[in-house]
Amino acid sequence: MDLDARRKADPQHWNLATSIRVLAMDAVQAANSGHPGMPMGMADVATVLFGKHLKFDASAPHWFDRDRFILSAGHGSMLLYALLYLTGYEDMTLEEIKNFRQWGSKTAGHPEYGHAEGIETTTGPLGQGIANSVGFAMAEEAMRAEFGEELCSHRTWVIAGDGCLMEGISQEAIALAGAQQLGKLIVLWDNNDITIDGRVGIADKTNQHERFAASGWRVLSCDGHDAADIDRALTEAQNSDGRPTLVDCKTIIGYGSAKKQDTSGAHGSPLGAEEIAATRRAYGWDHAEFIIPDDILSQWRDIGKRGAEERAEWQKRVDALPGEERDEFARRISGDVSPKLAPAITALKEQALESKPKVATRKASEMVLEVVNPHLPEMFGGSADLTGSNLTKTADLGEFNVQNRAGRYIRYGIREHGMAAAMNGIFLHGGLRPYGGTFLTFTDYARGAMRLSALMGIAPIYVMTHDSIGLGEDGPTHQPIEHLAICRATPNTLVMRPCDLIETAEAWEIAIETRDAPTVMALSRQNLPLLRETASENLSAKGAYILREASAAPKVVLMATGSEVEIAVNARETLESQGIPTRVVSVPCMELFRAQPEAYRREVLPAGTVRIGIEAAIRQGWDWLLMGEGGSDETSDFIGMTHFGASAPAETLYQEFGITPENTVEKAKALL
Amino acid sequence: MDLDARRKADPQHWNLATSIRVLAMDAVQAANSGHPGMPMGMADVATVLFGKHLKFDASAPHWFDRDRFILSAGHGSMLLYALLYLTGYEDMTLEEIKNFRQWGSKTAGHPEYGHAEGIETTTGPLGQGIANSVGFAMAEEAMRAEFGEELCSHRTWVIAGDGCLMEGISQEAIALAGAQQLGKLIVLWDNNDITIDGRVGIADKTNQHERFAASGWRVLSCDGHDAADIDRALTEAQNSDGRPTLVDCKTIIGYGSAKKQDTSGAHGSPLGAEEIAATRRAYGWDHAEFIIPDDILSQWRDIGKRGAEERAEWQKRVDALPGEERDEFARRISGDVSPKLAPAITALKEQALESKPKVATRKASEMVLEVVNPHLPEMFGGSADLTGSNLTKTADLGEFNVQNRAGRYIRYGIREHGMAAAMNGIFLHGGLRPYGGTFLTFTDYARGAMRLSALMGIAPIYVMTHDSIGLGEDGPTHQPIEHLAICRATPNTLVMRPCDLIETAEAWEIAIETRDAPTVMALSRQNLPLLRETASENLSAKGAYILREASAAPKVVLMATGSEVEIAVNARETLESQGIPTRVVSVPCMELFRAQPEAYRREVLPAGTVRIGIEAAIRQGWDWLLMGEGGSDETSDFIGMTHFGASAPAETLYQEFGITPENTVEKAKALL
Repeated sequence: MDLDARRKADPQHWNLATSIRVLAMDAVQAANSGHPGMPMGMADVATVLFGKHLKFDASAPHWFDRDRFILSAGHGSMLLYALLYLTGYEDMTLEEIKNFRQWGSKTAGHPEYGHAEGIETTTGPLGQGIANSVGFAMAEEAMRAEFGEELCSHRTWVIAGDGCLMEGISQEAIALAGAQQLGKLIVLWDNNDITIDGRVGIADKTNQHERFAASGWRVLSCDGHDAADIDRALTEAQNSDGRPTLVDCKTIIGYGSAKKQDTSGAHGSPLGAEEIAATRRAYGWDHAEFIIPDDILSQWRDIGKRGAEERAEWQKRVDALPGEERDEFARRISGDVSPKLAPAITALKEQALESKPKVATRKASEMVLEVVNPHLPEMFGGSADLTGSNLTKTADLGEFNVQNRAGRYIRYGIREHGMAAAMNGIFLHGGLRPYGGTFLTFTDYARGAMRLSALMGIAPIYVMTHDSIGLGEDGPTHQPIEHLAICRATPNTLVMRPCDLIETAEAWEIAIETRDAPTVMALSRQNLPLLRETASENLSAKGAYILREASAAPKVVLMATGSEVEIAVNARETLESQGIPTRVVSVPCMELFRAQPEAYRREVLPAGTVRIGIEAAIRQGWDWLLMGEGGSDETSDFIGMTHFGASAPAETLYQEFGITPENTVEKAKALL
Repeated sequence: MDLDARRKADPQHWNLATSIRVLAMDAVQAANSGHPGMPMGMADVATVLFGKHLKFDASAPHWFDRDRFILSAGHGSMLLYALLYLTGYEDMTLEEIKNFRQWGSKTAGHPEYGHAEGIETTTGPLGQGIANSVGFAMAEEAMRAEFGEELCSHRTWVIAGDGCLMEGISQEAIALAGAQQLGKLIVLWDNNDITIDGRVGIADKTNQHERFAASGWRVLSCDGHDAADIDRALTEAQNSDGRPTLVDCKTIIGYGSAKKQDTSGAHGSPLGAEEIAATRRAYGWDHAEFIIPDDILSQWRDIGKRGAEERAEWQKRVDALPGEERDEFARRISGDVSPKLAPAITALKEQALESKPKVATRKASEMVLEVVNPHLPEMFGGSADLTGSNLTKTADLGEFNVQNRAGRYIRYGIREHGMAAAMNGIFLHGGLRPYGGTFLTFTDYARGAMRLSALMGIAPIYVMTHDSIGLGEDGPTHQPIEHLAICRATPNTLVMRPCDLIETAEAWEIAIETRDAPTVMALSRQNLPLLRETASENLSAKGAYILREASAAPKVVLMATGSEVEIAVNARETLESQGIPTRVVSVPCMELFRAQPEAYRREVLPAGTVRIGIEAAIRQGWDWLLMGEGGSDETSDFIGMTHFGASAPAETLYQEFGITPENTVEKAKALL
């Protein structure tokens, strides 16, 4: 059907959808950069979705029981911005649309969570949105199981493109969603057959219907430019038999642009003024750039109010809850930290001081979770198939699965990237606090999603065990050497490497209390003694602190993290026995130490002493503590790794690589 | 069929396969760590594969036309080590088997490329092997197209487990192999239904047959403990209709261990002395630990010689080649760098000095490749669907695809991780030099495979364009901030960030000449002026060098990389005009500078000057140049990023974030 026929067949729909198309063309042209083709291609589908199916209220973007809409194909950001503007989200003004991709605007090149209301997650790196959506949908199931469908019953809608489906993370997401039978998850596939390099077929011949079906999805199809057909498919999509649903929306990229539609030329560049004019004519749209006529805008604004009544009813149900239940529900969806956390942590720390357990910090982490999880129903754990190694499953957590939506532990499978992205989705959904485990070295697999946690300023907790060569025999592929540096390199990320049970408890307390940054917990495989002698204050919150004071004004300051703090303490003993006053500074979190006032930093790290950093990892990221902060190259040294590890028992590796108290003593004395 | 029946049905096969099983049990027990279950489960399949199908000659592990065997499920390393020992690879002694997972042994916890002959690639991080294999198989196709099937005609065999198939990277690999119709690629799926956390079904319900078929694979099945059935399936697998083949081998993990078989208890821990004794009895195997009776060993050794004759014939064909052709084939499979490289680079550099083009370094990279690729037929390019942005396809490169195996450019699709892993495979196969492009920020997606390039000491070239906030409007999701630091943090990786066409040419020359480390080329989106004034020497090979000398003994040294060198040069002009002698040091490669003699380093970075580092990225990784190497905290500073980027035109971002000549001047003067 040609454009004219489409327009005549359903003029109302045509005008609504074309509003999106022209805004996308105009904004990309004004910015002289961006992706017009996808919004032009998916405008019809989005119009039917927002117009008739999506449960939302533009005046209440935070309404907890709204449907979530996730633009996994984030480069099509103008589709989302246009929808937010047209439906009347208060902060998405026409001015913002006109400032697309400009400094200070809410309309970034790709949708950025937190920039504008209605952006549920940051997308752009392909595949992340669809993988987030699995987390959103699991969170919805879990909250529904806990609070009932009167308070929680909504869908997760995703628009994903061919790029999303080619990225490996999409397979992890699809398979997890299929295994979990997330019936309220609906993925709308923008099947336009075009990628940047050309036709999809030059790199992919996958039959997506069969692929999704193989992982337990239901597959529907529609003509992505036929409003009635889209409506039929989206209606059917909501009538799930328990399986998640893929809707194959056959579309034409850059729909309506005579010269560029159905080519990669429509994908990532402005169409050009001439082509835009021609396309406007083809649309039968004779309004100037950025102008949406009042009658059309007003229809869109009515769409934005579609959900108002439903929301009011929901609010009534919330208000009618018994006080305590209402308060708890409010706390949960606000994300406020439970007042029960601090006492649980304090009790455990005090107990630890008495029993002085020598345990791996991964075990310590489990001990913390055992006392925290029963009090914090929002804790939602999991592991990428390393439960017995990460020690992430506590006794009280049932498994979250098709049979038991009240479970709070997810078997993510061997899918580190999908897990991290799902954790982002769970956090963003609200109501739950996700944590998930794998080995620290597999940060490599999860990086794409972990970076987005940091960029969005959200706070999933990554439980990364086997955090050094201390894991031993598994060898260099499994031994993180550069991964602490990688995590510390990432802005807005807390990297906690506790040295014993007390620091591990403190790290968890900090991680849970932090709502605006992810935490990476780097935890040992090997047993570590209890080194802390006090527990009254959360000293880890200062990032670094004096763990063992020197017997006199310190001549040597040994700094270490995690499993190497024990080495520092032992080295100190020798140095002290030789008459060299030596201080040990434990550095569980560099980011927090950096944020301390200078006076405190100088108190912990006085100028004029020898400084040695000890960490079974590369030096990168340590120099500021050694040569900066009043230190100098001439009086500092580092004991760690300069190359990949090896396969052997941990003790052998520490000896062979010279990460020992003896070597520490020697290096300290050489600098004195 | 129970064990006894199996044994009686085919005692010869039984003894061969059981040799593998007992060695795996014994070695893991001796090491008190490792994974016995997988070798025990896949011993039958491996025995049939090595015994009857795999083309190899244990006495010539480097025979170019051997079949490649890749153990993607690398935790089952004892399967491979047992096979290498049994078939008589010279360096895989029984002593090595007994020293499994010990310091200095060749038998690391996971197979490490380069440790022992017959290890085709390093595996362990799941999914890497299967993704490597796609590169191996593409390389075989390409070399066969170039040199004919008399010289190159072999298969790539992979053993992959459920973990490999759950990792997202496997989907990228499967879909790419399907699109490329790699008919000589055969994946043997160890379908044992067990992962570390339990039954596969707790996290995955994917029908793998349908999943592979959806991407254009042929799927066969066999009983993985029935030698005849395995033989039938492997025979059929080699009779391809053009599609790659998956063989579903239904196996029992820990086969024969009464207490642990078919449970995750057999996966990753020693069985225990008692259970091993019981299992030996169940096998009807009454030989002591590590003992393989001579008659069985001798049958295995005969298997190791199966390919000798075929190899001799192949060698005859090689020897019979015309001299020039033989030399070129020898050069190609040895990996020796073509003597044509240096002159091509020199000519381009000289031309650049004359024409002084102002181009983005991604464009400069294309200009280099345009003059290099026609002379170096081993160059094998590609991009993860960003060809027009990475500028990786030169005019002479045809597309490598089903219709054109002589093409030298791969459309990897939107699959950064799969691309990097395939590049590893292409390099490891031999004969070709892979390079591939994506945006620097998507290092995040490819990290898992990039780390393995470095760990293996192999040298694919990563063409990472859009290397800073300088990419502008796409915004923070696409702007690398921490990625240079991440790449530099990785041991044995060259990170080259050239500042102009001449440095880009030098960087490519270094990258191509380097055979034992991967290179990351960080290239700008934005245009950069030609800054170099000489071209006779490859100055980039020193890592850092004086680009602009100060007018007198320098009081300020400005160090910068890539697009920020221009800023340093401009700042120097201002400082010099104000009477402050200022040197500009270009730092295209920190790793190479670190390897220079101290005298040279001190010459470039004299003590006692103000030092400022400029890079549109985080400071981490710079401190050693600023505060070390004779510098100090008090006299140095850094201009770069401390947080994520933003969406706006590049010039705006540089201004807003203060990465400007003005700010450089100001900071320098503040320190004087």
